[in-house]
Amino acid sequence: MIRVLDEWWGGRHMSNMLPKLFFVHFCETSFIAETNQGRIGFLIGFLSQTQAEEAYIHFVGVHPDFRKQGVGSALYRQFFQTVQKLDRVRVKCVTSPINKDSISYHLRLGFQAEPSETQQDGVPYCLDYDGVGENRVLFTKATNDKLNDVGRRNPRRASSHS
Amino acid sequence: MIRVLDEWWGGRHMSNMLPKLFFVHFCETSFIAETNQGRIGFLIGFLSQTQAEEAYIHFVGVHPDFRKQGVGSALYRQFFQTVQKLDRVRVKCVTSPINKDSISYHLRLGFQAEPSETQQDGVPYCLDYDGVGENRVLFTKATNDKLNDVGRRNPRRASSHS
Repeated sequence: MIRVLDEWWGGRHMSNMLPKLFFVHFCETSFIAETNQGRIGFLIGFLSQTQAEEAYIHFVGVHPDFRKQGVGSALYRQFFQTVQKLDRVRVKCVTSPINKDSISYHLRLGFQAEPSETQQDGVPYCLDYDGVGENRVLFTKATNDKLNDVGRRNPRRASSHS
Repeated sequence: MIRVLDEWWGGRHMSNMLPKLFFVHFCETSFIAETNQGRIGFLIGFLSQTQAEEAYIHFVGVHPDFRKQGVGSALYRQFFQTVQKLDRVRVKCVTSPINKDSISYHLRLGFQAEPSETQQDGVPYCLDYDGVGENRVLFTKATNDKLNDVGRRNPRRASSHS
């Protein structure tokens, strides 16, 4: 997930991470945050086809000018409400163990890292999960478990793009 | 499976296109072809969550030593049979207009390219479909329409890795 944030930040191509298929085939569970200045964030997720009780969050991105304002947690909240109505009892997502910001963010939201024998700085991760060298922390959270508010430390006015 | 991908595509980083989630969350509609020498091909697809009559093929790969032997069309056939039983009436997939081999392969299987005002060498494609500069040919085929046999020009014996 943080990879997308980095790309948005650095102006790199996001399109490789976001093929159109997600917008075409998973639109009930994918959300875009907009202001009168345009699109400032998105969340791409889906109902697991194989795991009937699970939903999965694939990418989340927030425009750098609009971070720490609760945009991300609003997107997560909308996803959780939507999939809970569709009988999903838990939400999963993964991130890299080197993405400290992403790990911290998910822990603050209330996600838990699935146990594993391999750990980094106390955070369990699954070795080579997405291919050789592609370790991943596996996060999970029950849909009936309230999401914490995250990122509202600086309540914003429309002009406060620091 | 993810480990061998980069080798199959001549060193290009294909594993980024195949995060583990497809194997975890879409396993009823994803298939691996194996011989006694190991895994030689795979197809990753899913039932569209939004388009209730559609299924989508995301990625197909065949080991270079086992091409032109019908491995790919066997995988497509298995996918078509599976999704037809799950009430999907058509299958979609996309490819790049510069990927002549892929276009030719899909046309021979019996896919049709969706009409578009933009064309290259007579093949319609959708401009900027997957992002700026990422043009795509949009293929579609009815599941009750028989798939043609493709790639059996050199019926193989187990030792014929040319």
